Amino acid sequence: MKHARRLPSYLANRFKGWQATTFAENKSWFRHLAQEGQHPRSMIIACCDSRVHVTAIFGADQGEFFIHRNIANLVPPFSPDGDFHGTSAAVEYAVRYLKVAHLIVVGHSNCGGVEGCHDMCAGVAPDLEAQSSFVGRWMEILRPGYEATSKLDTRADRLRAMEQQSVLISLENLMSFPFVESAVLTDNLTLHGVWHDIGPGALHVYDPEIGEFSEV
Amino acid sequence: MKHARRLPSYLANRFKGWQATTFAENKSWFRHLAQEGQHPRSMIIACCDSRVHVTAIFGADQGEFFIHRNIANLVPPFSPDGDFHGTSAAVEYAVRYLKVAHLIVVGHSNCGGVEGCHDMCAGVAPDLEAQSSFVGRWMEILRPGYEATSKLDTRADRLRAMEQQSVLISLENLMSFPFVESAVLTDNLTLHGVWHDIGPGALHVYDPEIGEFSEV
Amino acid sequence: MKHARRLPSYLANRFKGWQATTFAENKSWFRHLAQEGQHPRSMIIACCDSRVHVTAIFGADQGEFFIHRNIANLVPPFSPDGDFHGTSAAVEYAVRYLKVAHLIVVGHSNCGGVEGCHDMCAGVAPDLEAQSSFVGRWMEILRPGYEATSKLDTRADRLRAMEQQSVLISLENLMSFPFVESAVLTDNLTLHGVWHDIGPGALHVYDPEIGEFSEV
Amino acid sequence: MKHARRLPSYLANRFKGWQATTFAENKSWFRHLAQEGQHPRSMIIACCDSRVHVTAIFGADQGEFFIHRNIANLVPPFSPDGDFHGTSAAVEYAVRYLKVAHLIVVGHSNCGGVEGCHDMCAGVAPDLEAQSSFVGRWMEILRPGYEATSKLDTRADRLRAMEQQSVLISLENLMSFPFVESAVLTDNLTLHGVWHDIGPGALHVYDPEIGEFSEV
Repeated sequence: MKHARRLPSYLANRFKGWQATTFAENKSWFRHLAQEGQHPRSMIIACCDSRVHVTAIFGADQGEFFIHRNIANLVPPFSPDGDFHGTSAAVEYAVRYLKVAHLIVVGHSNCGGVEGCHDMCAGVAPDLEAQSSFVGRWMEILRPGYEATSKLDTRADRLRAMEQQSVLISLENLMSFPFVESAVLTDNLTLHGVWHDIGPGALHVYDPEIGEFSEV
Repeated sequence: MKHARRLPSYLANRFKGWQATTFAENKSWFRHLAQEGQHPRSMIIACCDSRVHVTAIFGADQGEFFIHRNIANLVPPFSPDGDFHGTSAAVEYAVRYLKVAHLIVVGHSNCGGVEGCHDMCAGVAPDLEAQSSFVGRWMEILRPGYEATSKLDTRADRLRAMEQQSVLISLENLMSFPFVESAVLTDNLTLHGVWHDIGPGALHVYDPEIGEFSEV
Repeated sequence: MKHARRLPSYLANRFKGWQATTFAENKSWFRHLAQEGQHPRSMIIACCDSRVHVTAIFGADQGEFFIHRNIANLVPPFSPDGDFHGTSAAVEYAVRYLKVAHLIVVGHSNCGGVEGCHDMCAGVAPDLEAQSSFVGRWMEILRPGYEATSKLDTRADRLRAMEQQSVLISLENLMSFPFVESAVLTDNLTLHGVWHDIGPGALHVYDPEIGEFSEV
Repeated sequence: MKHARRLPSYLANRFKGWQATTFAENKSWFRHLAQEGQHPRSMIIACCDSRVHVTAIFGADQGEFFIHRNIANLVPPFSPDGDFHGTSAAVEYAVRYLKVAHLIVVGHSNCGGVEGCHDMCAGVAPDLEAQSSFVGRWMEILRPGYEATSKLDTRADRLRAMEQQSVLISLENLMSFPFVESAVLTDNLTLHGVWHDIGPGALHVYDPEIGEFSEV
């Protein structure tokens, strides 16, 4: 692979620092993880956004969360057509092989992917409508969320509503996977939806009883 | 979404703890991130595995890495067919919109996805060969890595070699994306491949000059 | 400028070495920095002392810290009199234009500037008392720190206490700048004070709750 | 100082990493530096800009460079009026007390301070003209550099020329300090001027024989 380059030295140095501190102090735990394998309690589906670290906000240790991250924390509908489906593969692996007990979809504020979807659906982002746009095609998963929120007055309100729709639509799509549905109906898996507000550092959890997100 | 449940209280409690400490002490930074948007230096493609936290081993703070995580840190070949391609969308977003300078593929030891691929290719994992297996179909991306390493004597050697192949094949596939190739050839993007050995807490970086991974 | 001379060749040679290694491996990042501008997370105010490299002790890469360095990491009180105020200009640029989220004042042990101030205040450094002494006049900013610590028994204790006073007085003076005060009070900027002990390689952080510096 | 906050934990962690690696491996050198004091060979006057680390580009070790950093690497003219002059104090300390052999002024490309000065002098940055603007008043030092370059056609050419003027004007002003002039004339101090081009990673050194900067 002739195009690969060495690691930037500041990262190599930081790694050595981690190795000499965090790792050195937890050697036995890392050895245990390597020998016994992982047994995560939960799967997290979150956004790639650099501002959202679920391991930080949930104080997670190595071994605790099986984490899939993609643009706008989306799950496409069940579609076993033999193509490459990275998200579906991650869900299948977590539910059928790791048998996680919780599956938590984490949305967040100021999401660039959601904003792009909003503008695409509003007809003002032609580049995203191109068949060749991977981001545009991926964000199609959220199009129903645009329709559900397009009557809101302000752009800010619509974006926030769509960010929360990205969580709900992913949860709905998860239920279209037979192995997810049966695990949920037999109480072997619990689904959760949360939305993280970056600026104020708040967490809003979807409450099925009121059908809304409410702050913890 | 009637199947969603409230967050397990231990996670809600940990979040409140984060909010009262890390967030409270960095309020201004999170507000800055929310208002000014993200400007990550690098995109990381890592595995969903719960034992590998790149933010920890590289001492990264919020805002530094745009992170995509999928099974076995794989990138499929360029295929603009209009279907949902979560990994391709994440790469496109990072390279074309965020203009990250580095794209680092992070593989790791004891990878369950790679082991499944090894067994599937060896003909001893029929369930993964089923067209309906999302994990099996996804791991097809790594099949060339099995062929390249199948002559190694021990299973342990083959698995380690395939884990490193998952990094190299992803890097090769990344170059099949026109916008990645042109960014790399014009020095606007640099590719890196590393493999993290969980038990000994080591990091091996692919060195194009020797054509091998060597420990930092 | 007829008095300038060419660069000592050992420095030119080292630069070429950096260019052929670190730069070559991070070309895309430097181009990104040049094209997209800087978005530093923090401003650091440190001493000119050759023994204190904050980029090293904090594992910072290019683009992360906006750094002002002067004798004894001092910030003079707010004084908009139209004269040249290099430190005030640096603070204004970081807070009002770059909108940094953190402002960290870094003091250190064995500080020659602080020692000079101690002796000047003790009346045993007449040269520094001269109106023509730039160092003496600059160190006047720290005189209140001498008074606060002069009752300590040993010279070593007084010097260490004054080095930490240089951090606290700078933080107090920073709050006298209206744009700093309002940024702090509206949670758009966070102030921090640390003292680096060179010999033992320790870092002591000011903890407002106990009103003292404590080692991390 | 009730407004100070604890250090962000990622910085505390990185420091511990530095302490356990770089420091641990160089303990004797840091102890030596603490006990014997600093004996830097050169003083560097550079910009606060987060993208320019002179210790990196010149491969400098702790103890080698006495570094003053301010907006646009400027030195004001000699003015012993008893006011606070941070830059003059740093120069005086380096030349008279540390007796450095080299004084190197380092300018750089894409300098925001220089751009602000250009716009202020062009009459299109009223906020910088306010007597209360510390950045504006500080950049007055470079005003002669605007006049010297204002006839250049493109803005890009004028900005680059002004960035190099910031180096030359600082060198001229340095000669207005009696202790600098005598040190230079008696061969106890050598002055150097360089300009760092961030994007291409180049270094241009002022050559008095041709009266221009030329790339090393």
